[in-house]
Amino acid sequence: MANAIILIMDGVGDLPTPKTPLQAAKKPNLDKLAEDGITGLLSPVGRGVVPGSDTSHLAIFGYEPKICYPGRGPLEALGLGMELRKGDVAFRANFATMKGGVVVDRRAGRIDTASATAISDLVSMRIEDVDVIFKNSVEHRGALVLRGPGLSHSVSETDPHAEAALPECYATEASNEARKTARIVNRFSQEVQKRLSEAPENKTREKKGLPQANVVLLRGAGSFTTVPSFEERFGIRGACIAGGALYRGVAKFIGMDIFMVPGATGDKNTDLFAKGKAALKALETHDLVFVHVKACDSFGHDGDLRGKTKMIERIDKELMPLLLKSGACIVATGDHSTPCCRKEHSGHEVPILMYGPQERSDDVEKFDEVSCMAGGIGHITGKHVMPMMLNLMGKGKKFGS
Amino acid sequence: MANAIILIMDGVGDLPTPKTPLQAAKKPNLDKLAEDGITGLLSPVGRGVVPGSDTSHLAIFGYEPKICYPGRGPLEALGLGMELRKGDVAFRANFATMKGGVVVDRRAGRIDTASATAISDLVSMRIEDVDVIFKNSVEHRGALVLRGPGLSHSVSETDPHAEAALPECYATEASNEARKTARIVNRFSQEVQKRLSEAPENKTREKKGLPQANVVLLRGAGSFTTVPSFEERFGIRGACIAGGALYRGVAKFIGMDIFMVPGATGDKNTDLFAKGKAALKALETHDLVFVHVKACDSFGHDGDLRGKTKMIERIDKELMPLLLKSGACIVATGDHSTPCCRKEHSGHEVPILMYGPQERSDDVEKFDEVSCMAGGIGHITGKHVMPMMLNLMGKGKKFGS
Repeated sequence: MANAIILIMDGVGDLPTPKTPLQAAKKPNLDKLAEDGITGLLSPVGRGVVPGSDTSHLAIFGYEPKICYPGRGPLEALGLGMELRKGDVAFRANFATMKGGVVVDRRAGRIDTASATAISDLVSMRIEDVDVIFKNSVEHRGALVLRGPGLSHSVSETDPHAEAALPECYATEASNEARKTARIVNRFSQEVQKRLSEAPENKTREKKGLPQANVVLLRGAGSFTTVPSFEERFGIRGACIAGGALYRGVAKFIGMDIFMVPGATGDKNTDLFAKGKAALKALETHDLVFVHVKACDSFGHDGDLRGKTKMIERIDKELMPLLLKSGACIVATGDHSTPCCRKEHSGHEVPILMYGPQERSDDVEKFDEVSCMAGGIGHITGKHVMPMMLNLMGKGKKFGS
Repeated sequence: MANAIILIMDGVGDLPTPKTPLQAAKKPNLDKLAEDGITGLLSPVGRGVVPGSDTSHLAIFGYEPKICYPGRGPLEALGLGMELRKGDVAFRANFATMKGGVVVDRRAGRIDTASATAISDLVSMRIEDVDVIFKNSVEHRGALVLRGPGLSHSVSETDPHAEAALPECYATEASNEARKTARIVNRFSQEVQKRLSEAPENKTREKKGLPQANVVLLRGAGSFTTVPSFEERFGIRGACIAGGALYRGVAKFIGMDIFMVPGATGDKNTDLFAKGKAALKALETHDLVFVHVKACDSFGHDGDLRGKTKMIERIDKELMPLLLKSGACIVATGDHSTPCCRKEHSGHEVPILMYGPQERSDDVEKFDEVSCMAGGIGHITGKHVMPMMLNLMGKGKKFGS
């Protein structure tokens, strides 16, 4: 019986140009684990399927996203520490800038967090019998929750994804709940523009020549539901160490405990050493510690092959030695590929390695997309990860006698 | 069109210390089959899932255990040759010793079979409108069947699994059937104690200083149901050669014919030569012969690496030459791993080989957990075995035209 760490490097999988970042990176620690452990290739959501980060993480932790994905909004809201109730409809929300009826900047000039916080109270309000609750996070980002009777997530988004008029929200199914929710969202869009345009903070920004944050764009609508907790499902306690709110949201959704780590920002300068130390701490009280590193994906989206390679090298140098020190079983993988040549998620498999003392080993000596093709794990999907990880830890429940 | 033998070595899979028993054993016959045939890795119930022996065998023979596992009790009862009817509730039953209200020996000092048989009639009785039918097998072991209207398997066991008071049986679901069954079981526990403590055989045992067999412990409750027979499902006749009652029970449950073999004990001294001869005999009248060898699992549970290795060598030397002589297609595998370092079942894959004249062959030359990682079969689960075996035999039914 052993504890385990699962390291998920977001979007780490890639395509050869001619080497993938995992092939190009100097990563002696990950390669040593591949050599001593057993490797394979993982398609979190299904062979060839292009996963979102949220659906992929759910799948890896044994929650079939086709059944229990609540949408991005609720996961973001949970990740920001908002408490959700069954039936709440939540959205991913962005401060943005409107001029002459047109959304001219979808991020309000990447408004600084302090400035966004100064106006955030104005975004919460009550419309009809619905509480509209907003919380901002980093820069322009935040989440919005609608709480009240008879709501539905079947409504369109209000993010135009381009310089264009603010889209009207409409019901995407023929139900009173969806029509009501669309009506509330449209009243919110009007009211929030009115409130924000009068905010002193925005007057100050205007004087400084900064774009006003005078509207809030909504997308990723989802209805909050509950799922059986990670501990109920698997009989083990899980802890999450992640800079990005979405990942903490997934972890909270399934009942993991969240360890907040100062310096773990979810961006390219995240403090990997601090995350490693937090992982060791979390292992004292939890069976499984989920460590998430976001930046590989961000470099992939930017098409920055060199940046992605260096990020993998940083993980190997700054994070891996601490994880290895723990003596825990280690699983390392990604949630999907984000090939630099595509700048977006793809359905290509990601390498996975599993290491434990006295476990089986294969002939693979490198942790990358090509070497792991010959691995002893073969090709697996997300649903296989938890049973295999529990078995690695010696904590699988026997079925039958 | 050919007949086939499937050899299932119970719990044969293991972990490296530094070699697994399959890697360490001298087994020229199995290795030759691996060389000439095609190999891979099998997860009977699902990747990483820790199987019981019963669920695993059901899965390998194409009976999804999540749907049709009747519980251990009915399988044990069938394996002892008891006839079951739909609605019967059956238990695995043990003679045990109580003193001063405490179960002091869960096996009544491993009472000899003759002594157990002498008192076995006392265990059968009628309570309310329910027939309580007992049959003993080897030593302290047996099975108990409740037959009557309105029974349920949703009741707790009466085996304390430790030196402790005899547990009261209670309903584990809120139904009249479960409450009635618990009431019958509790009345049985009282009545059987009374009857056995008065039995002359127990007086004799007491005089000899042997522990009395004065109570019967029940576990593994299951309701008997029927499933479509092996022949209906696959169009072939199956025969079973197994020393352990549970395995004969699984075979009978799915409609295989049971070949009883004197000397096939299911323990470490089982007569493998006799089993091999019986397999040849069974092949004259049956398409598929299932040969089960239990002892690899027993050595695994004991943590006896050397014993497990020697048992594999015995199988290779004493059983395999006969099986090879048959000219039948041969499938060899295990039902799960029982790593000696864990002393219990695990969810690690087991190697599988399939051999037939004029079949495909891969580059694998050894039959073990690591060599078979590179096998041409890849990674399969239980549900794949029957279609592949039928195909190997040239007896698969075409789907479509």
